[in-house]
Amino acid sequence: MSTFEFTVLGASGGPSEGGTQSMLLREHGTLGSEKWICVDAGSGLHQLMSMLAKKQRLAANERDSCMGDRIESLYRNMEEPLSAFIDRRLHVLRGLNSSELLVSEDNIICAALKMFNKIREYYITHPHLDHVAALVINSPAVKAEGKTILGLKSTVDALKEHLFNDVIWPDLLAEKSTPLDFNVLRELKVHKCVSVPNWSILPFPVSHGQTVVGRVPNFSTVYLIKDQRTDNCLLVCGDLESDLISGKPYLSNVWNYLSENIPFNRITGIVMECSSPSSTEKAHLYGHMSSRYVVHELKQLSKAYDRPLDGLKVIIIHVKMEPQEIDPRLTILEELRSLASMAGIGDIIFSIAIQGYTFIL
Amino acid sequence: MSTFEFTVLGASGGPSEGGTQSMLLREHGTLGSEKWICVDAGSGLHQLMSMLAKKQRLAANERDSCMGDRIESLYRNMEEPLSAFIDRRLHVLRGLNSSELLVSEDNIICAALKMFNKIREYYITHPHLDHVAALVINSPAVKAEGKTILGLKSTVDALKEHLFNDVIWPDLLAEKSTPLDFNVLRELKVHKCVSVPNWSILPFPVSHGQTVVGRVPNFSTVYLIKDQRTDNCLLVCGDLESDLISGKPYLSNVWNYLSENIPFNRITGIVMECSSPSSTEKAHLYGHMSSRYVVHELKQLSKAYDRPLDGLKVIIIHVKMEPQEIDPRLTILEELRSLASMAGIGDIIFSIAIQGYTFIL
Repeated sequence: MSTFEFTVLGASGGPSEGGTQSMLLREHGTLGSEKWICVDAGSGLHQLMSMLAKKQRLAANERDSCMGDRIESLYRNMEEPLSAFIDRRLHVLRGLNSSELLVSEDNIICAALKMFNKIREYYITHPHLDHVAALVINSPAVKAEGKTILGLKSTVDALKEHLFNDVIWPDLLAEKSTPLDFNVLRELKVHKCVSVPNWSILPFPVSHGQTVVGRVPNFSTVYLIKDQRTDNCLLVCGDLESDLISGKPYLSNVWNYLSENIPFNRITGIVMECSSPSSTEKAHLYGHMSSRYVVHELKQLSKAYDRPLDGLKVIIIHVKMEPQEIDPRLTILEELRSLASMAGIGDIIFSIAIQGYTFIL
Repeated sequence: MSTFEFTVLGASGGPSEGGTQSMLLREHGTLGSEKWICVDAGSGLHQLMSMLAKKQRLAANERDSCMGDRIESLYRNMEEPLSAFIDRRLHVLRGLNSSELLVSEDNIICAALKMFNKIREYYITHPHLDHVAALVINSPAVKAEGKTILGLKSTVDALKEHLFNDVIWPDLLAEKSTPLDFNVLRELKVHKCVSVPNWSILPFPVSHGQTVVGRVPNFSTVYLIKDQRTDNCLLVCGDLESDLISGKPYLSNVWNYLSENIPFNRITGIVMECSSPSSTEKAHLYGHMSSRYVVHELKQLSKAYDRPLDGLKVIIIHVKMEPQEIDPRLTILEELRSLASMAGIGDIIFSIAIQGYTFIL
């Protein structure tokens, strides 16, 4: 039984400013409901507009499978088919959903603004700009329904102090007409999601490299989202680095928690960053994962469960654009499949998160 | 004689996060040169990629006039012709230039990264995120040639303290491998442009509303760019409000400076923000211009020169997306033409800045 609808609003790890990481999540089958959440907010309103515009242009092909859709690549080929990025065993839809809501009397701008206001909570993994830029720039469009921004204390403090501070952006929290508020989450403490009452959300702190000045550790967050009706779980990662690099057991803690608390077949998917291909030197990862570290960590998950990860859906996000011949998303996908096979950790279903598509998990 | 090539990397005033304000400037006829500048940087690398991709797709139509190009609107119509936004008396080109450089052995990503590294200086008008987001997110792609970020002291201080601060973004100024530096400009003091040695740049402080907390004045910058060979000038505005609202003579100072120092026929264009249509209440302008305030200020310019502004090219930027039936860019353009005509200030050539097109001025 599917539980989660995960729409990719943004999947890029930069350095292009378009479409950086943002994941829209809904309970499966509740597209019409008024309350959605996002994990991260590098992209937002613009991508809602783009999805609606694409749907309108492709209306005649609505019932076609989207696997043949042409996805902009701009490397060896201008476009690649969606099937080059997505495992065919996954259920993927174009746009928000095949039965997407475009109220016929609205134009696309008005419809996108209505959809934007269904996003009631933003769970932010860390305050780097590629994960929060749209949250800030979209904020004047927040209507009376309001939005809550949630994160660990360091994240919330950073957003208040450095972005909504009347210097980089108006302090909309002090602006009575904008119903925007913050909520600090506690590490490793289950949070009951207000917008989707069936969901509980558990934040794990993870390592994300070090600051340039002083080499102080940088933190990010992994969110475990659990649906209380089905007991199904989705693990959503922001930027992070492997325990092999941080030298700390942050990801081990996640894998141990999962194996001790969640039956393997209740993990409907893991959304994990992989910024760079395996060949990237450790010194150039800057707190991120490459293919071989992703496979290393999945091997630790396999050990924690003491079983192969057959059928586990791993969706890769935050691939960085690189000056090379082949689309790095394709390189990384091939590496992951090959390295996981060599590691003998089971038949994992790897795919790449593609902006503007919805995964049913 | 044309002097300036002004490519619109981003023209939006939000709240959509895509394509916010950024203006790429070159000396006319020097596309191949290695040094370009930007005023503001809400958009960057992504738009360079988009322009190159569009050029590649339209290669067969390269020699067609672009006035019939379909521009995404998403209001009453999905698209509007370019001619709905641009006065036909202007010389406008699709993309960077009709003889654009796409080195044939490069793919688009590689070509865009090369172009990005030709931008050597960013003149920032103020530190609001819609004007600097791409500057930050694109920064890992800066190569050895380096980039300098320039602005008045309050702007430079804000970028250092709140963005490149190891919290919102790595402190790349402390990172020796990233040749990024800052340069503080002094108000009303002529700055010699390093990247384009024929240009001098004069920053004027202007009012941009008030902070939410404490109602402290917010500042922005107007840049007057003068080409020393031709004596031609281009006036480029960031966000600003009319003296009628601020109650201070910031724009009067600009108009007086121009009339006392620059012959009228040497002003090749004025790029000015107009965020909202005339009907917008004063309380909802938040430090921005509406059509009637733009015309009021142009009337002051006409008075300063004591002549009608016949033939003056005014390019409008930073129009905000609104939930309405008609594209607000079209509403504003119609209002400006009509209000200027009623005010009897001459035959001004009004157009809207459209992302991905180059104005030859």
